[in-house]
Formats: sequence, C-alpha cells, structure tokens
Amino acid sequence: MELNLKAGSPGGGMSAWKVVLLLVGVQCLHVVALKSQLFTRGDALDYSSRKAVDYKTFYLNQKIDHFGFFENGTFKQRYLVADQHWHQAGGPILFYTGNEGDITWFCNNTGFMWQVAEELGAMLVFAEHRYYGDSMPFGPDSYSDSKHLNYLSSEQALADFAVLIRELKGSWPGARSSAVIAVGGSYGGMLAAWLRMKYPSVVVGALAASAPIWQFPGMVPCGDFHRIVSQDFAASGPNCDVNIRRSWGAIDKIASTAEGLAWLSGTFSLCAPLKSRPDSVAFKEWLQETWVNLAMVDYPYEASFLQPLPAWPVQAVCRHLGFDSSVSDYKLLQGVSEAARVYYNYTGTTACLNTSSTATGSLGFLGWYYQACTEMVMPLCTDGVQDMFEPQAWDFQAFSDECQALFGVRPRASWAETQYGGKDLSAHSNIIFSNGGLDPWSGGGVTRNISDSVVAIVIPQGAHHLDLRYDNERDPPAVRRARALEVDYFKAWVRQARRAP
Amino acid sequence: MELNLKAGSPGGGMSAWKVVLLLVGVQCLHVVALKSQLFTRGDALDYSSRKAVDYKTFYLNQKIDHFGFFENGTFKQRYLVADQHWHQAGGPILFYTGNEGDITWFCNNTGFMWQVAEELGAMLVFAEHRYYGDSMPFGPDSYSDSKHLNYLSSEQALADFAVLIRELKGSWPGARSSAVIAVGGSYGGMLAAWLRMKYPSVVVGALAASAPIWQFPGMVPCGDFHRIVSQDFAASGPNCDVNIRRSWGAIDKIASTAEGLAWLSGTFSLCAPLKSRPDSVAFKEWLQETWVNLAMVDYPYEASFLQPLPAWPVQAVCRHLGFDSSVSDYKLLQGVSEAARVYYNYTGTTACLNTSSTATGSLGFLGWYYQACTEMVMPLCTDGVQDMFEPQAWDFQAFSDECQALFGVRPRASWAETQYGGKDLSAHSNIIFSNGGLDPWSGGGVTRNISDSVVAIVIPQGAHHLDLRYDNERDPPAVRRARALEVDYFKAWVRQARRAP
Repeated sequence: MELNLKAGSPGGGMSAWKVVLLLVGVQCLHVVALKSQLFTRGDALDYSSRKAVDYKTFYLNQKIDHFGFFENGTFKQRYLVADQHWHQAGGPILFYTGNEGDITWFCNNTGFMWQVAEELGAMLVFAEHRYYGDSMPFGPDSYSDSKHLNYLSSEQALADFAVLIRELKGSWPGARSSAVIAVGGSYGGMLAAWLRMKYPSVVVGALAASAPIWQFPGMVPCGDFHRIVSQDFAASGPNCDVNIRRSWGAIDKIASTAEGLAWLSGTFSLCAPLKSRPDSVAFKEWLQETWVNLAMVDYPYEASFLQPLPAWPVQAVCRHLGFDSSVSDYKLLQGVSEAARVYYNYTGTTACLNTSSTATGSLGFLGWYYQACTEMVMPLCTDGVQDMFEPQAWDFQAFSDECQALFGVRPRASWAETQYGGKDLSAHSNIIFSNGGLDPWSGGGVTRNISDSVVAIVIPQGAHHLDLRYDNERDPPAVRRARALEVDYFKAWVRQARRAP
Repeated sequence: MELNLKAGSPGGGMSAWKVVLLLVGVQCLHVVALKSQLFTRGDALDYSSRKAVDYKTFYLNQKIDHFGFFENGTFKQRYLVADQHWHQAGGPILFYTGNEGDITWFCNNTGFMWQVAEELGAMLVFAEHRYYGDSMPFGPDSYSDSKHLNYLSSEQALADFAVLIRELKGSWPGARSSAVIAVGGSYGGMLAAWLRMKYPSVVVGALAASAPIWQFPGMVPCGDFHRIVSQDFAASGPNCDVNIRRSWGAIDKIASTAEGLAWLSGTFSLCAPLKSRPDSVAFKEWLQETWVNLAMVDYPYEASFLQPLPAWPVQAVCRHLGFDSSVSDYKLLQGVSEAARVYYNYTGTTACLNTSSTATGSLGFLGWYYQACTEMVMPLCTDGVQDMFEPQAWDFQAFSDECQALFGVRPRASWAETQYGGKDLSAHSNIIFSNGGLDPWSGGGVTRNISDSVVAIVIPQGAHHLDLRYDNERDPPAVRRARALEVDYFKAWVRQARRAP
C-alpha cells in the first residue's frame, strides 16, 4: 500500500523526521508498538509463547461513517475468531479491542487471553481497528489525504466494535446469550474501557491494561511519563539515571566539532554517520526514545515484544552506565553506546545502528500520528530535574501547527475529556484498569479504585501490560495475582449477566 | 430561510405530500410539535402559564462536526439562560436538551422548570438543537442537500450539549461546581436520557419525559402507539372508537362519487375541496393524524399546546361520536366533522379546515423527516382491530426507498439500538422516565423501573409530558406526585454529586 501523504500547509510539507522530533513525546508507545510489527513480521510468536495460536479470519462490512449518512460506503473490517474452547451460551466471549496496528500481531501478543480461554470456556475474538492492518476504509487511498482520513477516530472504532459484537451475537450460532468482555492493552485498553463506558449494552465489562486514559490535557502532570522512565533507570543500577542525564551535555560538547561527530558515529556504529548539529539533535531524540522503550518493555524474562531483549533489560543497560562523576565525556558515551546495543543488538546480528528507524513511515505509524493530531492529544514534557532528559515544555500551539502542516487538521485539546468523561468515571461499572509500576504510561492510568466495580490493579514490578502476556516462570508474584484477579472479575461479570433479566 | 430540498433519486423527487402519507406514522408527534410552533408564534405563553418567562439569549461556537476533523467549521448554537433564582454552587443547573424546534418555544412550554427553579435555587438553561430554530450549521444552506444535512444527528446534538455544559461550567462565574441535570420531553427526553447515558460526567441525572426511547425496530410492537390512541377514545365516550373505525369505510363509500367528494368538502368546511380519490386518501390521513394529536394533548384543562383546545379534548370530540350502529354514513361523518372542529376550531375563528397544514414544509418538519430517514427509525403500524384505524403494515423497504428519493439517504434500522443500548439500560443510573398513560408515545417508553436509580413514573391520566407543564388546579393527583418525586430525585442527585470526590 502506497503512502501518499499530502501536507496541507501553504508553506509546504515537513519531513517525517521533523514530525518525529515533535511528536516523539506523544506517541512513542504507539510508534514503538507499530515499529515492532515490522520486527515481528514472520516471527509472530513471542519468545515466551507456548504454542502457535489457532484462529480463523473473517471480515465484516462496516459503514465507513457511523455518524453520518452522506458517506454511505462500507469497508471490510478484519476480525479473528478462536472458538475451540468456547462453551457457547455458558462461556463468555473475550473481545480484543484492536489498537493501532495489524490485529494478527496483537492476537499473537496477548497470551493471557489464549491461556484463560479454556478455564473460562471462552470464545476469543480479535477485532482490527479501522485504518490499520487489513481494515482500510478506502483501500489504498485510505491515507491519501485528510478527507480520506476523516473516519479514523476512536468513536468510529468503538462503533465498529459495537456493531461487530451485535452482529456476532445475532449470527454466530450459540452466541446470542454469551456475555462479552472487552480486553485491550495500551490504546487498545483505552478502547476497551471506553467501549464499556459508551456501549455498556454490548460488553458486560472491560479489562483495560496499561491504558493511559488520563494522559490528556489537564488531567495528569505532563512530566510524569518521563519521570517514571527515569525512576526505572535509577532503580536498575547505581548512577544509571545520573549518567544518562549527563550524556546529553556530553553529546552536545562532542558533537560541536566534525571530529566529535565522526567519533560519535563510529562509537555507536551508526549506519548513517552524523554530519551536522541537527543530526546530533535527532541522535539525542533517538536515544531518548530508546530509553523510553526500554522502560516500557522492562520484562523479567527474555522477550521480543519490541526488540529481542534480555531479562530485565534496563538492568542490562545500566550495567554499562555505572560511572561515577569523574568519568570523561568519551568514556561516558562509550558506556551509552554499549547500553544502546543492549536494545538494538541483543542478538549480535545488527551490523549498524539505524537512528532513523523510528521515523519509518509505516502505515500504523502515520495512523497514530493522525490520531494524535486530532483527538489523542497527550501532553508529555521533561524538566531534566525530576527526569533524566533534556528539558522540553509541552507546546500545544507548536504541536497544532505541525499537525496542520502535516495533515491539514488541528487537534482539539479538550475533546477527549468531553467525550470520555475525563477523571470522572464514577457513573461507570465493571472496568479493571491494570497498570505496571515500571510502565511510563501508568502515569496517565487509573491506579486507584474508583468504586467497587471500577477497580485498579497495580503490578509494581510490571512493565507495559505485562498481565496481557503469556505467563512465565520469572513473572513477579504481583502479575500472577493480577491475572487471577482479572479472571475472577470476568467470572463475576458473567454470573452477573446471567442473573440479569 | 429558503428551503430548497433536492431529491436525490434518478426517478425524480416526490412531493412533500406523498412523504407525509408515508411518514405520518413515524413523525406525527414531531410534525405536530413543529407545526405548533407556527401556531404559537407570537403567542408563546401557554394558557396555563403564570407569568412571562425571563431569560437571556446566548450563542456558543460549536464544531459543525464533532466526530471528524476534515470539516473544521463552526456554527452558533443558541441557548437561553435564566439565573435569577440560581444559588450558584449550592444550586443545580437544569439543562433542557432541546429537540426538533425553536428553543424559545420549548422554553415557554416547559413550565415545570420555571416553577421549580426557585425551590431548587437552580439556573435554567435551554439549549437549541442544531438544524432547528436559529442554530443552523450552514446558515441558509443547512437544508440545501444531504451533504449539508450530514451533521444533523442525535450524536452531534448530544456532543453540542456536552460541549456547552463544559463551557458553561468553565466560564460562567460560580458554575464550576454546580450539578447539571438534563431535562427534556419527547425527542428532547430521549436526548436527556441519552446525554446521561453517553456523557455521565456532564450531567448528574436526567428527567426524560414522554421519551419513546424504545420506539425502535424490534423493541416494542409497532401497533402499540395507535392502540393507545384508540384506548383513549374508547375510554372518552360511548362508541367513540367504534365510530372512528367505522368512519374510514364511510369516507371511502361517499368519496367514490363526485357528489360525495363535494358533500365531504362542504361538511368539513375544507379550504381546498376534495377532487379525487387520492385527495380522499390524504383526507383520511389528515383525520388520523388529528385523532393521534388529540390523544397526545388530552390535558385536563383548557390549553393550547398544539392548538387551542378545551379541557379533556378527547371527551369533547367523543361527544360528537356517540352514535349507535344504526347511524347512517352521512350522519356519522357529520359527527366526525364536528369532532374535527373541536381540534381545529375551538376558538371559533377558523374560516375553513386546511387538510394540507401537516404537509407544510416548515424547517423543523423537514429536519425531523431527515432524522427519521437516518437514525430515528420508529416503526408504527395499525391493524384496525386493536386500534380504530385502517390497517397499515410497517414497510421498512418502502420507507427506505422514500428516504432515498427525498434526501438521498437510507435509514439504518438497527443503528439506534446499537448506539443507545436498546432495552438494556441496566448499566446506567440517575434517569427518570416519566410517561402518561394517555400518551401514545408511552408505548415506546420505559414504564417499569430498571433499577433503583433508573426509574419509571407513570401518570395514568397524563397525556404527552404533562409533568413538564405548569401546574394547574385541574391536574390529576398523579402528575402532582410525579413532579414532587422528580424534584426529590433532583435533590438526591445534587446531594450525591456534592458527596462525590
């Protein structure tokens, strides 16, 4: 599928790279999640998976526009079904609310659902989010301009899910009285929670894993995200965060000469040597994103969610960053380069490090950019004090201007709060918000119980939606308890649904 | 404002009249409600009103499309505010969710809100529904074609309300901590309930008066509506329903000759004499709608909600329809003509009866047609056995074809159920559904408690949202109790909101 993104500003378009620099704060989770699709394609099974997943693929005709009638066209939404363990009316349907990527990848990376299917007698359904994977409203033209992108929104995606669930219950033999439970992680977890909030008649409850539904303007401090990243590093080795904080100035100093740029390029084995000051700025952004990613996937066992990585990868990184304050800039950055190789070359097969990989114009990447540029306005900032990064304020106007230049749209900063209720979740029910203490996105998550049935589960030693992964012998006890509790809630919701009139 | 409706079908447009014949079943409430605007313009106060209402008029810039970013334009939504009794933070905001007409008319016809404002220390806000009254998204072009009508939907209207409430709470001095309660009647009552269901963070509760939220495909029998109309007539005078049922055949017989058509035209003092068989079909539809309207406004006192009418107008009508089975067709229809005059000429000033008045292409009229042709698919039917009308099945395909011809859109029969949860309201809270036993729309209403906080109030001797009117010494005790109970719930919701974190 060809991407032909037309920037709408009279001043001309901007390079994807510039956008990344601006957007890196607001979309690193998602960029990474999508990037990982590329890495895992053809190798869909996680290291820790037990067996190949077995599902059938279906497509449902969905209205391109659920909220208007002028555009009456339809598109084929992909969804995957595994019903080998399903007890029909007696068993629930676990419904994965697909997020910004190919649904087969989420299907293969949500081991928890596969592991509990037999115990619950559950059917599994994985529904793809429109504009990602195979679910393209306008086929190859879906991303051609802002007119075609107009139907990429969380509201349209939720409507797709609601229509699909009603369709399944109406047409799948035996499914009419099956209780449906929404499950999702990250943005998919936000969708799971919102599906229960907005369409409680179609799902009896929701597990929203690592869902930063409060990462919107005015709800949480914009610095929390990077503060949590920094805490992870501080706790994973002596002086680790201090040395990363120190590294930015060291890079600036060394990058100020041509010799320094060459030294950096060589020390980091960069595929594309740094040539200029802007290159070194981008280089720092790439490193920052690397540390953020590591915090997200700081799992207690060898895994390849985003990259093939060792157990507790942040500890592995920090082993190279234990210098005391007497270290020279060169020695420090040699340590940083070793640390980066933990992330980019754990397998030992990487010939050189590619600092532009995060800017790859992959489909999902662009889709999430568009969503960030419209509804999903998630302010992030750094101050260099509470966190180990260079200070950068949240600048909504600059962000909006970039969105206008790139997509011809402007974000609406307060819309998500209006639409999804902001911090007031008191009227809702049957939602589990699970969060990992190591996960930077937990800063925008719900980590305290709202009520008896809108509950928070915190997994202190957990990274990004650890609970949705296959179990592992090195799992911390807290995630085992979390999964067991989640299953208990699922069973209670199913019982509650059976008692309902 | 010029209405220039372009029918989109290759076969050419259809006359408004034909549409009325088809749609009369699904929109009589609303057509009537809008028609009544014309009647009440310049005479906004109800007969039973105590004093002139006193409000200020404001306008808020709203996004034309809340759910997409390609159309980034705004329009001015009108709203009315009366804060003379408001106790600021201590008092709630009663927020009328405007329905398909000019908001000043609803403001003047919702005496209940004006009467309880002082007791509750409440601010009153009346918000106009987009595409009605002064709130035109594209000014004079708003109704020009299906492209401009695309943003006329309940979802967009609810989003307008949510945005407006957040705007008021953010900018109106003292309003930040005021609890907001949604109030609405008829379609406005549906919107009040849906606002609480979809945006529970903006309203602490809703009073949905005479809101037929279950009048959608598959939820209630399509015949209930006209069965209730017929019951009202049966209970209001001996043989009343029987004689109306008999009248259709009598009209057919007499209308089969030119002399008969002339006799009918003279007997009913029609402004436009009947000339042909199609005229007589339209004449019967007009009579049917007259009886339906009378059932809706069968109030216990003289009132002019839709027309100036006597107390218990259905009884007044039935006084002319007490014939036994020996009555001749001519005598019967003379009685029917007297009955019709009760509705059309209570003031004695009507020179002739205008059978085309329901087909007037008024703005609101067309707007509701469009809504019925898109989301608001409300099947109605008659069988001539349980009701006093000529049998007419519900024919979705024919309806859809007419919508396509008229607006270039096709209705989506199951969308409202998907979007608003159908009969499963169990997850919601703090909604009062009030219904009158005389009101045909109660057939599609919620008349049994769903839970402790989603409750039904039935007013056996009540017509269409009687509880929203000013009180009257002739009010039945049930409506007095209903209003008192509604105020008790309001107070409880406000207390509950104050206790919330």
